Amino acid sequence: MATIYDIAVGAAFNIVTAVAFLLLFAFLRLQPVNDRVYFPKWYLKGTRASPASAGATVAAAKYINLDMRSYLKFLSWMPAALKMPDDELIQHAGLDSVIYLRIYRTGLKIFVPITILAFAVLVPLNWTNDTLESLKVVHSDIDKLSISNIPYGSKRFVAHLVMAYVFTFWTCYVLMKEYQIVARMRLRFLALEKRRPDQFTVLVRNIPSDPDESVSELVEHFFLVNHPGHYLKHQVVYNTNKLAGLLEKKKQMQNWLDYYQLKFGRKSERPTTKTGFLGCFGSDVDAIDYYKSEIEKIQKEEAEEHKKVMKDPKSIMPAAFVSFRSRWSAAICAQTQQTSNPTVWLTEWAPEPRDVYWNNLSIPFVSLTVRRLIIGVAFFFLNFFYVIPIALVQTLANVEGIEKALPFLEPFIETPSIKSFIQGFLPGLALKIFLIMLPTILMFMSQFEGLVSQSSLERRTASKYFIFLFFNVFLGSIVTGSALEQLNTYLHQSANDIPRIIGVAIPMKATFFITYVMVDGWTGVALEVLRLRAFIIFHLKNFFLVKTEKDREDAMDPGSICLYWSEPRIQLYFLLGLVYAVVTPLLLPFILVFFALAYVVYRHQIINVYNQRYESGAQFWPNVHLRIITALIVSQLLLLGLLSTKGLEEATPALLVLPVLTIWFHKYCKHRYEPAFVRNPLQEVMRKDTLERTRERNFDLKAYLRDAYLHPVFKSNGVDKFYVADDPGAEEVIVRTKRQPRRITPVQSEHDGSDSLSVLESVHER
Amino acid sequence: MATIYDIAVGAAFNIVTAVAFLLLFAFLRLQPVNDRVYFPKWYLKGTRASPASAGATVAAAKYINLDMRSYLKFLSWMPAALKMPDDELIQHAGLDSVIYLRIYRTGLKIFVPITILAFAVLVPLNWTNDTLESLKVVHSDIDKLSISNIPYGSKRFVAHLVMAYVFTFWTCYVLMKEYQIVARMRLRFLALEKRRPDQFTVLVRNIPSDPDESVSELVEHFFLVNHPGHYLKHQVVYNTNKLAGLLEKKKQMQNWLDYYQLKFGRKSERPTTKTGFLGCFGSDVDAIDYYKSEIEKIQKEEAEEHKKVMKDPKSIMPAAFVSFRSRWSAAICAQTQQTSNPTVWLTEWAPEPRDVYWNNLSIPFVSLTVRRLIIGVAFFFLNFFYVIPIALVQTLANVEGIEKALPFLEPFIETPSIKSFIQGFLPGLALKIFLIMLPTILMFMSQFEGLVSQSSLERRTASKYFIFLFFNVFLGSIVTGSALEQLNTYLHQSANDIPRIIGVAIPMKATFFITYVMVDGWTGVALEVLRLRAFIIFHLKNFFLVKTEKDREDAMDPGSICLYWSEPRIQLYFLLGLVYAVVTPLLLPFILVFFALAYVVYRHQIINVYNQRYESGAQFWPNVHLRIITALIVSQLLLLGLLSTKGLEEATPALLVLPVLTIWFHKYCKHRYEPAFVRNPLQEVMRKDTLERTRERNFDLKAYLRDAYLHPVFKSNGVDKFYVADDPGAEEVIVRTKRQPRRITPVQSEHDGSDSLSVLESVHER
Repeated sequence: MATIYDIAVGAAFNIVTAVAFLLLFAFLRLQPVNDRVYFPKWYLKGTRASPASAGATVAAAKYINLDMRSYLKFLSWMPAALKMPDDELIQHAGLDSVIYLRIYRTGLKIFVPITILAFAVLVPLNWTNDTLESLKVVHSDIDKLSISNIPYGSKRFVAHLVMAYVFTFWTCYVLMKEYQIVARMRLRFLALEKRRPDQFTVLVRNIPSDPDESVSELVEHFFLVNHPGHYLKHQVVYNTNKLAGLLEKKKQMQNWLDYYQLKFGRKSERPTTKTGFLGCFGSDVDAIDYYKSEIEKIQKEEAEEHKKVMKDPKSIMPAAFVSFRSRWSAAICAQTQQTSNPTVWLTEWAPEPRDVYWNNLSIPFVSLTVRRLIIGVAFFFLNFFYVIPIALVQTLANVEGIEKALPFLEPFIETPSIKSFIQGFLPGLALKIFLIMLPTILMFMSQFEGLVSQSSLERRTASKYFIFLFFNVFLGSIVTGSALEQLNTYLHQSANDIPRIIGVAIPMKATFFITYVMVDGWTGVALEVLRLRAFIIFHLKNFFLVKTEKDREDAMDPGSICLYWSEPRIQLYFLLGLVYAVVTPLLLPFILVFFALAYVVYRHQIINVYNQRYESGAQFWPNVHLRIITALIVSQLLLLGLLSTKGLEEATPALLVLPVLTIWFHKYCKHRYEPAFVRNPLQEVMRKDTLERTRERNFDLKAYLRDAYLHPVFKSNGVDKFYVADDPGAEEVIVRTKRQPRRITPVQSEHDGSDSLSVLESVHER
Repeated sequence: MATIYDIAVGAAFNIVTAVAFLLLFAFLRLQPVNDRVYFPKWYLKGTRASPASAGATVAAAKYINLDMRSYLKFLSWMPAALKMPDDELIQHAGLDSVIYLRIYRTGLKIFVPITILAFAVLVPLNWTNDTLESLKVVHSDIDKLSISNIPYGSKRFVAHLVMAYVFTFWTCYVLMKEYQIVARMRLRFLALEKRRPDQFTVLVRNIPSDPDESVSELVEHFFLVNHPGHYLKHQVVYNTNKLAGLLEKKKQMQNWLDYYQLKFGRKSERPTTKTGFLGCFGSDVDAIDYYKSEIEKIQKEEAEEHKKVMKDPKSIMPAAFVSFRSRWSAAICAQTQQTSNPTVWLTEWAPEPRDVYWNNLSIPFVSLTVRRLIIGVAFFFLNFFYVIPIALVQTLANVEGIEKALPFLEPFIETPSIKSFIQGFLPGLALKIFLIMLPTILMFMSQFEGLVSQSSLERRTASKYFIFLFFNVFLGSIVTGSALEQLNTYLHQSANDIPRIIGVAIPMKATFFITYVMVDGWTGVALEVLRLRAFIIFHLKNFFLVKTEKDREDAMDPGSICLYWSEPRIQLYFLLGLVYAVVTPLLLPFILVFFALAYVVYRHQIINVYNQRYESGAQFWPNVHLRIITALIVSQLLLLGLLSTKGLEEATPALLVLPVLTIWFHKYCKHRYEPAFVRNPLQEVMRKDTLERTRERNFDLKAYLRDAYLHPVFKSNGVDKFYVADDPGAEEVIVRTKRQPRRITPVQSEHDGSDSLSVLESVHER
């Protein structure tokens, strides 16, 4: 049983570690040689000469900062990080980043008043009992502060009940306010946004195949007929996997060429290289000539592949980006159903060009539903049965297993110190590796599901990861047992008993979670600001691999927020805070410190380091909201379970009201605010359209959109000539179909010679 | 324990009853005096002179059919009912009715092959064991045919397992085919439909209040700005409760006037009446003069109320029917979100004018969510705790209770025969009344929830009723215990045990359900064709109340299908059939007879009797589908529970696959077919628009739609003059706002004098 003293020691240790990291960071960031590790965002913006964020004056020395005064203000980055106003931050880093920071702020808003109230009301109430002493059970001072110290059936539980209500209402209030603010920020962001291709564009998927017409013609006909006067242009999607591979290869070659040309420039002696694997085997050749010819070869191949992709109808996927003359028409097309068969001509608001996940654009409808089923089942097994393969690996990866597989290692392994190391370390290693790989595995699963944008992939993965953390970290730590054993428990216990079993264990695990918050939260966040991995990799690359200035640019890895990895972890703190708020309020200050520290650190990182890969306009907020609501409901159910063992059965109905109200609150919020994150209100787009039409009457939208949704492969290549081919004439609104009319329609017989109409009709008939 | 003999006796009794009812019907329907009871549909169509349905030649005698030959063919109505082809039936009775009949046909399609297979495979398999005999348990022959007769852990269970798979796949296959056919029929129906007001109209709710403009102006401005070129006209909704009352009164008076005028015409002596209550008290007056003056009085009142309603802005509700120039624009407006605040300007496809539920049009958004919460909780309590108030009533309604409350009845009650009657009858009476009232109560709950169309009200009520039947009739009969006791069981049993407890009880209840099917199904359906209630009421009214020919018209009550009442009851048969298909196949023939009989009877009723109040275009099919799927999953889970007690635990994983697959199948179908029932595909409406524009170039749509969505009160009154007032000039597209511009917008400063723009802007600003 951990006492307050133990906790204090742990806290001290973790504080020291965290502070050490922070000091190290403060020192390292002042060294110019680390500039590209700690301020990449400014390099990418091209303004590194004067970073607005820090008081750091880059010293004359090229590698080490010799200005002693700057060391004195080693924590100056913290206030600096807090200084930038929100509007500027949105300009600087995008709305996603700002709203991501709001998650931490929401944490503070929820938990500061809860902590104060809990310490003012619950802690004295718990402390002034002597249940634990009189029971003579082994207990710690922490337990004296918790609900465990209240005697069975005491009237004092009413206070906890009231507090549960107060905490719920406060949390819901904050959540609603935040949802409101975030929705407003998003709408303002969308309204103030400059003209962007995705505002005018709709992604069309599952275009049915047609024997008479190509995909491109089909798309054009379909939208000319069904959105007459609105359709502007479209961009088909090509299958470019091979082309992308060639490009990657060319880039590599170009890099080597640059390197050797630089070398040649310096040494004035033509460098040589070997043609074999990694330039280590094979015959010597002149390096520059060799790479030049290689690049030429690839270019030829590329051009051929290009032609093939463009000509071969099979390389055109049944998906297209269709652009409209106004935002209004695009919004309309994205929100409506096009044909009576809801599995073809699926339209949705196109993601930002950067955000598109190209590989998934061509998955047909049936395949999508099958994939979703497969992933659903797979995730269920991953969540509840992941221990099995790991246990198998662990049985193999013990000392005997290794000796059997690799007998020559036997004498080495049998050394006592090494043996104990292997025995102590290896079994955990498989699990550790799995846990590190987990977000990537989950991301892969989401990709397999067929989502078409990076942002939706991240959101889906985050949901999966949160479920995993909930069962395997939160419940797993409380019930101590693998999720598989838990599953067994859940199936064999009555619906009543599950919250009771878990609820009873909750107060006992408080110290464990306090330690968890300190290690994973405090030290983890301090480590994040240090960017150890990026630091090491950058310097390694810089030392060994960097051949050109462009390489150095590439070696700089600003990273990004990685929502799918970090957001579920924050949610775990919300869960812990809400669950322990009534039970063991002592946990709350630790969580507060985490939220505050993380807020400052991530704000700093967002200003100076991260470079978001796309901008989704805070589309992840509904998920954040949902997960906090989930945490709230879990906390209510567990409290219900706990109190039902404390002789307070009468409280059950009073407590049952809470989850019902919370679910209702969630439904209300979902109806009220979620559409702002999903749909595109007509009034807003109309306003933007009207303003724009007045301001820039003659803007050439078509030229603007010309290659917005071209696959990045084509763009980097600059071969627009191929692409222009399927761009129809701007004024040619009526398109002749290649299809023979199959029957005389009544309309035709009435109005002979109305060619345009017969086209309409024939397209309609499909 | 019921033996096959008992069942046979029961069956014989029920068959005799049913046949007696059918014979009675065959006799009664041939009597001309009953013509309005059994063929009202043809009267409403105005073609009763030659009813297409029957070979009945209306005899010369006015009241009784004397043509003996017609009695010989007394069952001729059955083939006649089956003769009418589907297309003609859709023309005759609407798509809703035809699709309603499809439910029975689906039942036959699912259960005929299942019955054959079950009798070919499972019955011999079950019969050729002697488990029950060797165990010396009391058993009946029926149990020998059921799964109970297979010994513990026998290999024969594999056959049941395989059959469960076969039945599931067959059911899913039929369901998918049916969904497909129904969706196609609906689309065809919509495509072939004549021009109808709802095709062009969108219902707008939650119009925000504005201090400067009336609702009508606001609607006009909003849609002129946000749907320019598409908006045609709108119709505001008035609060007309008082007016409706006045109209009702006037109608009554008019009726009396007609009656007395007819009397005067016959007797040539001016009739008199009394002014007091029901014409029984007060002073004598000349009847015709009296009613004429009364009608005049009411007309004045009405005109005043009319003016008040039209002038008073408070009587205009924040809802409107907005019509567009084309179906395409209406479809677009209905499917998109209008403003960034998703709780105002809610648009949805307008229901058919007949289908509108006027009272709910003005409920604001927050109130709607609160109402939903209240009804959710109320329904939960109704479902699980309804026994409590009934038990209370029962304790009061015993002999002692009555004696206490009404002591003067004591000697009467104490008569032994009456006493025993009260004791035997009264306690059940409260329950009986409750069960009869239940659909009405549920309908009232749905109305309170705020749905805006009759059809959606019926669908919602049907869902509630099915849930009630599932828990209280199906599970209630199996677990024998009120739903309240069940709830207790469910909460205190593990998730594993619930299907086991119920599953084990299933085979034992087979005889009970066979009886249920015969009584409720066979005899119930035979009673339906007899229309006993309508028969009695019509003749009573005809004898006592009918004063004029119009009264006779009113006394004729064709009724309608009453989806909310009858559909959930059919679903109960699906549930029974699917659950018992593997367990006790003997139940299946009884269900087949029900489906076949009901199909013929309801087909006859739809052709000759029912008059649907509205046409929703089979929008209820997704609910039907969902409930059959639910029944399927329940059957799978119960089989799982049953087999787990039969020494076949290994079968669990194999059986667990079934519900997962079924749920996935449902999701697939939902995505694939449901949109056809909810949304309005653009291609279809565009096709209709194009055709129409070509055929009738100069059709005056505005005149056509002029009073389509006028409240029925105004229509029957013929006071369009009031209403025309808020119809704006057809060409006046730019509407001047009454609002003062609150700030100089940048646009305004750039383009002075562009009045129209300033209007746009000022409306945008909201």
